[in-house]
Amino acid sequence: MAAAPAPPLPDFEPAGLLRVRQGFDLAAVDPRSTPGFDGGKDEGERLLAAEDEELSDLQERLFAQSRSGARDAVLLVLQAMDTAGKGGIVRHVIGSVEPQGVHHKAFKAPTAEERSHGFLWRIEKELPGPGMIGVFDRSHYEDVLVQRVRGLTPPAEIEQRYGLINEFEAKIAAGGTRILKVMLHISKQEQKERLQERLDRADKHWKYNPGDVNDRAYWDDYQHAYQIALERTSTDAAPWFVVPADRKWYARIAVQQLLIGVLADIDPQWPVADFDVEREKLRLAAS
Amino acid sequence: MAAAPAPPLPDFEPAGLLRVRQGFDLAAVDPRSTPGFDGGKDEGERLLAAEDEELSDLQERLFAQSRSGARDAVLLVLQAMDTAGKGGIVRHVIGSVEPQGVHHKAFKAPTAEERSHGFLWRIEKELPGPGMIGVFDRSHYEDVLVQRVRGLTPPAEIEQRYGLINEFEAKIAAGGTRILKVMLHISKQEQKERLQERLDRADKHWKYNPGDVNDRAYWDDYQHAYQIALERTSTDAAPWFVVPADRKWYARIAVQQLLIGVLADIDPQWPVADFDVEREKLRLAAS
Repeated sequence: MAAAPAPPLPDFEPAGLLRVRQGFDLAAVDPRSTPGFDGGKDEGERLLAAEDEELSDLQERLFAQSRSGARDAVLLVLQAMDTAGKGGIVRHVIGSVEPQGVHHKAFKAPTAEERSHGFLWRIEKELPGPGMIGVFDRSHYEDVLVQRVRGLTPPAEIEQRYGLINEFEAKIAAGGTRILKVMLHISKQEQKERLQERLDRADKHWKYNPGDVNDRAYWDDYQHAYQIALERTSTDAAPWFVVPADRKWYARIAVQQLLIGVLADIDPQWPVADFDVEREKLRLAAS
Repeated sequence: MAAAPAPPLPDFEPAGLLRVRQGFDLAAVDPRSTPGFDGGKDEGERLLAAEDEELSDLQERLFAQSRSGARDAVLLVLQAMDTAGKGGIVRHVIGSVEPQGVHHKAFKAPTAEERSHGFLWRIEKELPGPGMIGVFDRSHYEDVLVQRVRGLTPPAEIEQRYGLINEFEAKIAAGGTRILKVMLHISKQEQKERLQERLDRADKHWKYNPGDVNDRAYWDDYQHAYQIALERTSTDAAPWFVVPADRKWYARIAVQQLLIGVLADIDPQWPVADFDVEREKLRLAAS
């Protein structure tokens, strides 16, 4: 039997639905929901594959454009509770673009040297250069999330950080880097199931960290810290998007479309040749 | 009509055929040949896709294993004339593995600071850490290739470098990093066609560099410099493989299999849990 031609994929433009605006309430976001997408997992996976090329083409243009001096770059900041799927985003969304055009940085607990500087010091060093897509797996937001929840920094200093972050990001944006901040939002129950899987499978044990269970006792505190960070740092220069992430496939297509949206908005152009094309054709023919 | 089930893919183990051993003659390698592969482009592309998962699984094991202290790493060195397809290898072979487990470095002409140090100084800083796959797009071999061909370094100093490279690589290998050196071998005619395409398409102009045509006048000198480098630095600790690359699909499956071979030889193991799995299950259930 011939396979039926795949039905057309539904339109999907999640940016407006996921953006954190004034009055945003994290508790009101259902982690299992799929805002703006009128389809299920199969359609989602087809969409992800179908849009790979669009993302990849836009990235190539962005990179090419920088060769003729354009300053545009993109910074994707990923924040989430453990197991929310940051790694899957990196692999399944970012994985489709030219590795040379991506600067990926996973931020761990700060080292002694990093702690001896301001909290933005280590971040600034990893910002993407012109033409690049930077991907931060965790970021300076840890400094107002875990630091707040676990009381590792005095409250007055945490308070100052929101303003410092907004100034820092505004400066980056003014330099030509579009900042896209994504919180992958999972439920406490979904996290439990994902941790359970890591315990059940010997080939997943290496991903399990007993500290992850400790953090579950602070779940509500983390949600509260996220709520504050989202409220205070979702700016026009560097907006936050909260992506429901209990369904991995949804989180992936949502981040993919957010990235495509930012790149399409830059609308990067192929550089005009800085050499005489016809003359080069003659030289090549003679070579 | 039902699509016929795809026929089984031919076996393909190119390492022995491509390895540079004593008596190797670069001029005798046909860049359009497909050593060891009894199939065409379609089968090649199917094989590439089919083996993605194997490569990806082995990489995950390598990465996981390093978390429990194993030192093993892999370094893939890619050298070639311009347009030979290094970028395509990075994208289509390496692109299938977890980006977090790959350290990609493209070496350009050395900066003033780099020139003020020994030629291996900038290389050493980019070596892959435990669990990582390092990919060098160009390398310290430029220092015995372009430097030799263009006479940028005195001949006596070039002569010394082969020995320095062998010592350097032996030390790296002894530290647990498997070194896989690949020359992508294209013909002068194939390069001409690829450069022609870059001139014919406005969206490819940015990849064209008039210097590439200048280099064509030195084609034979480059081949000679490669021959010497291959002869003198293909060691047990860090063997060279010459991969015919006029057919891009062949070069990709060949490098993919070479990488799989090295990883399979390491045979990385999932780390044993350093926590009490049953106790963690109880803690998780209670959380």
